[in-house]
Amino acid sequence: MGLLKEETVVYKPVEEVDVGPHSDQIYVRANVKAPRMAGLLVKIFAWFLESRIFGTLLMYILKKNNLIHKFITNAEIEEPPLFVPSHPFEDDHLKDQQEVKYIDSDLSPPEQVQQAMDCLPHYSSENTVKSDSFHRWTILDYSRAYRSGEITPRMVAERFIKAVRESCSPPLQMSFFINYNVEDILKQATESTLRYERGQAISFLDGIPIAIKDEIDCSPYPTTGGTKWLHKVRSCTDDACCVKRLRSCGAILVGKTNMHELGAGTSGINPHYGATRNPYDISKISGGSSSGSAAVVASGLCPAALGVDGGGSVRMPAALCGVVGLKPTFGRIPHSGVFPLNWTVGMVGILAGTIEDAFIVYAAMSGRLPSDQPTSSVQPKVYFPLLNSTEPISDVKLAKYEEWFNDCSDDIRICCSQSLDKLKKHYGWKVVDVTIPEIESMRLAHYSTIASECSTSLSSHLEKLDPAESGWDIRVGLGVYGAFSSKEYIKAQQIRNRQMQFHMKIFAQADVIVSPTTGVTAYPIKDDAVETGELDYINGAALVRYSIAGNFLGLPAVTIPVGYDKLGLPIGLQFIGRPWSEPTLIHIASAMQALCMSEYRKPEVFHDLLNRD
Amino acid sequence: MGLLKEETVVYKPVEEVDVGPHSDQIYVRANVKAPRMAGLLVKIFAWFLESRIFGTLLMYILKKNNLIHKFITNAEIEEPPLFVPSHPFEDDHLKDQQEVKYIDSDLSPPEQVQQAMDCLPHYSSENTVKSDSFHRWTILDYSRAYRSGEITPRMVAERFIKAVRESCSPPLQMSFFINYNVEDILKQATESTLRYERGQAISFLDGIPIAIKDEIDCSPYPTTGGTKWLHKVRSCTDDACCVKRLRSCGAILVGKTNMHELGAGTSGINPHYGATRNPYDISKISGGSSSGSAAVVASGLCPAALGVDGGGSVRMPAALCGVVGLKPTFGRIPHSGVFPLNWTVGMVGILAGTIEDAFIVYAAMSGRLPSDQPTSSVQPKVYFPLLNSTEPISDVKLAKYEEWFNDCSDDIRICCSQSLDKLKKHYGWKVVDVTIPEIESMRLAHYSTIASECSTSLSSHLEKLDPAESGWDIRVGLGVYGAFSSKEYIKAQQIRNRQMQFHMKIFAQADVIVSPTTGVTAYPIKDDAVETGELDYINGAALVRYSIAGNFLGLPAVTIPVGYDKLGLPIGLQFIGRPWSEPTLIHIASAMQALCMSEYRKPEVFHDLLNRD
Repeated sequence: MGLLKEETVVYKPVEEVDVGPHSDQIYVRANVKAPRMAGLLVKIFAWFLESRIFGTLLMYILKKNNLIHKFITNAEIEEPPLFVPSHPFEDDHLKDQQEVKYIDSDLSPPEQVQQAMDCLPHYSSENTVKSDSFHRWTILDYSRAYRSGEITPRMVAERFIKAVRESCSPPLQMSFFINYNVEDILKQATESTLRYERGQAISFLDGIPIAIKDEIDCSPYPTTGGTKWLHKVRSCTDDACCVKRLRSCGAILVGKTNMHELGAGTSGINPHYGATRNPYDISKISGGSSSGSAAVVASGLCPAALGVDGGGSVRMPAALCGVVGLKPTFGRIPHSGVFPLNWTVGMVGILAGTIEDAFIVYAAMSGRLPSDQPTSSVQPKVYFPLLNSTEPISDVKLAKYEEWFNDCSDDIRICCSQSLDKLKKHYGWKVVDVTIPEIESMRLAHYSTIASECSTSLSSHLEKLDPAESGWDIRVGLGVYGAFSSKEYIKAQQIRNRQMQFHMKIFAQADVIVSPTTGVTAYPIKDDAVETGELDYINGAALVRYSIAGNFLGLPAVTIPVGYDKLGLPIGLQFIGRPWSEPTLIHIASAMQALCMSEYRKPEVFHDLLNRD
Repeated sequence: MGLLKEETVVYKPVEEVDVGPHSDQIYVRANVKAPRMAGLLVKIFAWFLESRIFGTLLMYILKKNNLIHKFITNAEIEEPPLFVPSHPFEDDHLKDQQEVKYIDSDLSPPEQVQQAMDCLPHYSSENTVKSDSFHRWTILDYSRAYRSGEITPRMVAERFIKAVRESCSPPLQMSFFINYNVEDILKQATESTLRYERGQAISFLDGIPIAIKDEIDCSPYPTTGGTKWLHKVRSCTDDACCVKRLRSCGAILVGKTNMHELGAGTSGINPHYGATRNPYDISKISGGSSSGSAAVVASGLCPAALGVDGGGSVRMPAALCGVVGLKPTFGRIPHSGVFPLNWTVGMVGILAGTIEDAFIVYAAMSGRLPSDQPTSSVQPKVYFPLLNSTEPISDVKLAKYEEWFNDCSDDIRICCSQSLDKLKKHYGWKVVDVTIPEIESMRLAHYSTIASECSTSLSSHLEKLDPAESGWDIRVGLGVYGAFSSKEYIKAQQIRNRQMQFHMKIFAQADVIVSPTTGVTAYPIKDDAVETGELDYINGAALVRYSIAGNFLGLPAVTIPVGYDKLGLPIGLQFIGRPWSEPTLIHIASAMQALCMSEYRKPEVFHDLLNRD
């Protein structure tokens, strides 16, 4: 028995755990014990893992070394499991606020977009950033140019197609898209152009190019999920609900963006469709899994794109590519037509050049379908932030967990701390020091959950599949994903319950939790990774360090670009809000953006579709 | 691969499945492939199962033979998982009904009891059943006798203690209780007697003896869960919330009833505390797992007792012992202080001599704690059935699935069909023929769920435990329980989602689903089972045949005694209601009871604590 004797954790009852700054809770750094693997090494590892006997043994060692046994499998936990992070709708924090506006639930997507536009400041030369700083053209820029006739959606679409072609070819080979259909794009653009000519534009999104991550159904494209096989076993016959809503607003859906295969990684290196390159430095990763969506926005190809965020997959690439990433509350946007790579942690999110653009796209998509959650009777109400008030939102309390906040590269720490200082100085906001207990347990519990759900969702397909159809890193990933017991899964949900309670205690003291978005900035794409994919759990853990609560607890979160590291690579700052607090989050992000925008830099790869310089 | 090639089921999307009488869905009989085991055989089986290599192989074969691989593990299912059967509160079916009364949510348990009493017919000799038929003394009988001074709670307590002692000794050896404390019972009874003397009785439950299943915390007793070890690793320091509510009404808590060890079986044969014997025939089982609670009520020791129903564990022993069993909607009664043998299928339930008594005890306990479900904002409202209206409830539609209804012993089928005919004839109620698809899949999915949750909840205790402390049948049970993967658990939740939708379709056409409560009546306690416990999955499957929807889908259900088989063993008829429809169910059960009561027979073992004959 000596060999099997393992450490276990006995978790204290939640009510005995202090979340204040002087808590006795220790910050456990992610202690990832797995070497970076790519090339031949990852192949050998996959072979071992896929063999019955070695695989079982290897999994045992992997789980033990990475403390899953200690923190999850063998842990003593009193709290019952909480399986789904669906929050009761509460608007106490919103309904009496001057800064938000209640949106009627019967509105159509175009009407919701109009409501959002009414919440924005009037467009005028005053609002535009001074011309010597870089700024991407916004939805409003496009819309005004279309309305004035200065340019047409058709012209934008043609420039878009030309730019995508350029981006695909040497020397760039950006690997932005998995699929884009020239004919379909031009058809949509022509229709939009005609609407503008007739003065019948549907909404401010009419003619706006929007790209869709390739795990969201969007006609006429197959949904590959970044694989070579998913579309062969699952046909895509219709738009996902969120895409349908964008289409109904007149948006031009310009194709399916590249992603980490099956969303099962954070680098965006896809052995089938290429490693999506970072527009700020094409030798670096874009981050993932919504890699293409982040990169197309960063490079100016679209003002906005959709991603799906199951473990930071919208926020991480947004931060690494210097754009805004918004992950709404779990259940805020209908998921019908989004391929279920998991059921309880993922949410459609928005990548955009500015928080205002993210807000407009969010406005077009938010609101539940009646059929969405048949067992939840409370329809969450929609509120929008009034961004046109003369005063910025006041009295914001930002919760900061010092040790966690600082567990990142020096450049990120310095940049994010300075941004926080700016917020305090300019707006008089307060920082509340807190402790978020058991962050490492939450990371492991989230991993056990997303792994189990992904592997279950794919299981009936995978059984029929030749393993060779998947990338080598994914073969390893799926091997690990399928190795969890029901006990591990259920215990992970007990951890979820604890964390939900910890976070609610924190939200009783503060409006948002503030942190860097990632622990590292974009790292190099190595040659050996391009063919086999890459396993880099250490960099991976640093990337997801700040993302988990947004997914595991279903909390809304947003990342805003706040600066650059020494190499000129973007850095993001994250705000995590209480459930259903998107309007507050957008307000805060907008205030932060206003303080950073003048320092934004132009990426190495940038296409100006309006040609207005 | 030939060896591993297995059959799989591809489930049709729910919307394509017909639940009408002419559906193409095939009724799959439970095909349980496991021999009855007890004595030496169960020991050998447990040894094999507990060995690492043989155990794994054996589990593989067990799951395969019992179609878990086919219906769950390898099945193709489109629907997302539904992890918890918590229903949004809806009172559309209640709020305009004349037959129900809305109960204010601020009322204390004694006030709720008073409200319940106000819903009952006035007590008069008229209402009492004609004296030549058997009837147990009801709560109202006790209460009137106490108020009149004819008898005191102290006298009842003394007779109770004497009767329990008798029941423990040869020749009876009924094994009703795991613990009862004479001093504590007399203390409560004395206090109650004083209250009556002072004219200060707290409620109609004052002085009423109520027994508690030994998985519910109740001071001053340890909570054994039917084991020899649970109380050693988990101390019981307080009453469970439901017990606290009964105590606050003045009820005398008379001890902890015997149960199937860990609730992990349906026979009530407990190798540590004895096999609970059926008061109608002491050579037969009482059913389980709330075996003692059913038997004490049947034998007249208490008018009511509490059980917990995670897989029919209240309804099955109630039916086998000829009493009423009421399992409320999931979440209706707070579970704090109930040892979590599972989290998503169990509910505290009531065993009582009459449906009216079950209703009174239900009234004392129902209503959620605010802290109960922190993530659900809708507090379900409480409605009570107005049982004092002159007309019985009208226009009831009873859904019947013919093939399932008839999948039971001849005696049960005939008796239950005749009861249904009586309902049609006397009240003009309608039977709606329906098909409940995939019942066998639901049974397997429920088993995978309860097994996984039980094993997870116990895991940190079991690791420290010598396996020899558990009964042999439980050693086998726990071996099987711990063998599910996260995939099997999650797929079971996808089946739960499908079944929820199927049942909601049925409730769109009918008010309740009617079925026998069990597929067999009480079977013999064999000698070899008493020491080792018994594994009898075939009889077990017949017992739980009709119970699963109540647990897996969180639906309220009630069983009413409707007759006897050729051997004189009781038969129960079950009604399953839509979520939160307890008042309707109680109405229906009361109407059924009125038609059967005159034929009720006195059990072989019966104690009349009031000595009024």
